[in-house]
Amino acid sequence: MSVLETLSPRALAAPESGIVEVVNYARGRDGLIPLWVGEGDSVTPEFINRAAKTSLDKGETFYTWQRGIPALRQALADYYTRHFGTDLPMENFYAVGSGMQAIQLGLQAVTSPGDEVVYLSPSWPNFAAAAEIAGAHAIPAELTYQAGRWQLDLDRVKAAITPKTRLLFVNTPSNPTGWTATREDLAALLGLARERGLWIMADEIYARYYYGKALRAPSFLDVMASEDRILFVNSFSKNWSMTGWRIGWIVAPAEIGQVIENLVQYSTSGVAQFIQQGAVAALDEGDGFVAENIEKARRSRDILCEALTATNRVETLKPEGALYSFLRIDGLADTRRAAIDIVDKTGVGLAPGTAFGPGGASFMRACFLRDPAIITTAADRLQDYIRKL
Amino acid sequence: MSVLETLSPRALAAPESGIVEVVNYARGRDGLIPLWVGEGDSVTPEFINRAAKTSLDKGETFYTWQRGIPALRQALADYYTRHFGTDLPMENFYAVGSGMQAIQLGLQAVTSPGDEVVYLSPSWPNFAAAAEIAGAHAIPAELTYQAGRWQLDLDRVKAAITPKTRLLFVNTPSNPTGWTATREDLAALLGLARERGLWIMADEIYARYYYGKALRAPSFLDVMASEDRILFVNSFSKNWSMTGWRIGWIVAPAEIGQVIENLVQYSTSGVAQFIQQGAVAALDEGDGFVAENIEKARRSRDILCEALTATNRVETLKPEGALYSFLRIDGLADTRRAAIDIVDKTGVGLAPGTAFGPGGASFMRACFLRDPAIITTAADRLQDYIRKL
Repeated sequence: MSVLETLSPRALAAPESGIVEVVNYARGRDGLIPLWVGEGDSVTPEFINRAAKTSLDKGETFYTWQRGIPALRQALADYYTRHFGTDLPMENFYAVGSGMQAIQLGLQAVTSPGDEVVYLSPSWPNFAAAAEIAGAHAIPAELTYQAGRWQLDLDRVKAAITPKTRLLFVNTPSNPTGWTATREDLAALLGLARERGLWIMADEIYARYYYGKALRAPSFLDVMASEDRILFVNSFSKNWSMTGWRIGWIVAPAEIGQVIENLVQYSTSGVAQFIQQGAVAALDEGDGFVAENIEKARRSRDILCEALTATNRVETLKPEGALYSFLRIDGLADTRRAAIDIVDKTGVGLAPGTAFGPGGASFMRACFLRDPAIITTAADRLQDYIRKL
Repeated sequence: MSVLETLSPRALAAPESGIVEVVNYARGRDGLIPLWVGEGDSVTPEFINRAAKTSLDKGETFYTWQRGIPALRQALADYYTRHFGTDLPMENFYAVGSGMQAIQLGLQAVTSPGDEVVYLSPSWPNFAAAAEIAGAHAIPAELTYQAGRWQLDLDRVKAAITPKTRLLFVNTPSNPTGWTATREDLAALLGLARERGLWIMADEIYARYYYGKALRAPSFLDVMASEDRILFVNSFSKNWSMTGWRIGWIVAPAEIGQVIENLVQYSTSGVAQFIQQGAVAALDEGDGFVAENIEKARRSRDILCEALTATNRVETLKPEGALYSFLRIDGLADTRRAAIDIVDKTGVGLAPGTAFGPGGASFMRACFLRDPAIITTAADRLQDYIRKL
């Protein structure tokens, strides 16, 4: 028997990232414009690095609070008050080792092996993969796509729910589609969760990257009551250019704090204190930096989407939120092969839609959180490629 | 229904750490000598901090290799060659977010919900708790205790194995008992694992903290063949005074590398590159620092154990390895209450044996990785307390 055959089915079933596959294909190529990963081109700003370095200099290198240091939990509470109008106390906030870990811990908190969780598709693939590793089954409910626009279809969500369903995962604004729930969508989903006794896991990581009239996307925080069972999972990665830091947070009822602490204890046993100090600086001093990142995203979104639409072979309305153009190129059906061909011929890295589950296979994802000049170059090359098809 | 009642049974069953409970009781008390947690009193040395700070200054703040940066994997391979005489290539080494996460990922890799895993008890409580969260059942096989010495009882291990058993967890030198497997013990356990088709998860975190004649404790690396199914889980915490950094590693067959990468992807998505650079410095430049830590532990072990034995009411042979005196005080049966009483009356923090599972309830754990002068003070106070009993 080979050593692989002795591993568990759930481990063997965990898919290789469909994005990483293409990234590995082209790793190290000169002049590459990598739009495949959900990551901007800015390094972490110095005021955040400095806070981490100061913490190291002070010798903050010991075990620390499993729920997060009080300064960080308070900074999170203050951030939500400023940007979401909440008055939640710090007891509702928990620091964890990434948005991904927030999802993992949330799944462990709510599901038992054999349970089902429903998510909207196309979707960032990691939620469904994490659910299966936790022993739960991830059931997609497809968004509908019409004339370049994604929409929630509540009937499909209802149809996906069974007596085994425990949790509804809602990512809005959505990676990869850019679909952004309206307040009415959120109220409808919450009503459904209440009626069926489900938890909601709300991934509002891109809430600030919103291109509508308001300063942020609608949030479950706008429609929920304090007794609703909603776990918010979030990350410092995108707003503060901290993808490499591996720190995120959970917003959850204070009553389940001890359970979250226990799950942290038995997974990674907490987040480094000097990383948490960087996160405190990000929250307390970072509003200006986040505003710059959002403005960069908005400009680059316009450049990319307008160039693609101009080919008349791409039906890509500008997304209302998040950091991605999820584009379908007329005549390119096999997006996995297309992603390889495009990187070979243009040096632009796109993620194939096959990585994003049901409903996504014929699309490709481009992350536009980059310098508008770079995005202009990428857009020119893609235009050229598409026109030659 | 309360919000707690809507959580999963596995999450609700995850125990609050029996150590943290006492720590929280006495948090912030003046003049406390905290021997309850498995942590030394040294801050991380500057050459390690400097490597992390330099990495931040270089802008290494983006997503990185999910298996660990090549420099770290190579440094791990070199470290094992120096200290364990192996010639494993870097492909056998994987960076993860703590020794704890190494255990979590290993459990996911090998077990399915409903499977069983066998561990030696008394034991650091986190392995069993992590197994239950992963959906597996943790079955203790007690070490035997006689005249101040712990021994492996292979018959008990055999008796704990059922057709559902998938993995044998062996922590040597052991936290909390100090039991250290002989080469013969390891060969016997390996033979049993081969015969029953089990994986071994080898926690040899304390291998360098060994007080016998050799420079390190016997290791499964000394007795295994390349085709044996052994996952080594390890941590930078104890050797390099990096408890607060949250970084560890796995040594595993290269054939399962993609599976480990996928499990990392869907849990924390990797370790911060600047933390990994600190770990590279620890390995490449840290042999002298580790030697100092080991010498400190040896001296403090002697001071603490000799003072306790001198009371004639503590049957505590010096442990052969690890960082703990696991002491039983004549006449103190309820160690949870005793730990509270001792911290109240002496200001010395001990961990109650109730935290360490079957066979441990009547003992208390003291971590001696501290300045010998401090340990002398703690030992004096404990002597005084015991003599007044």
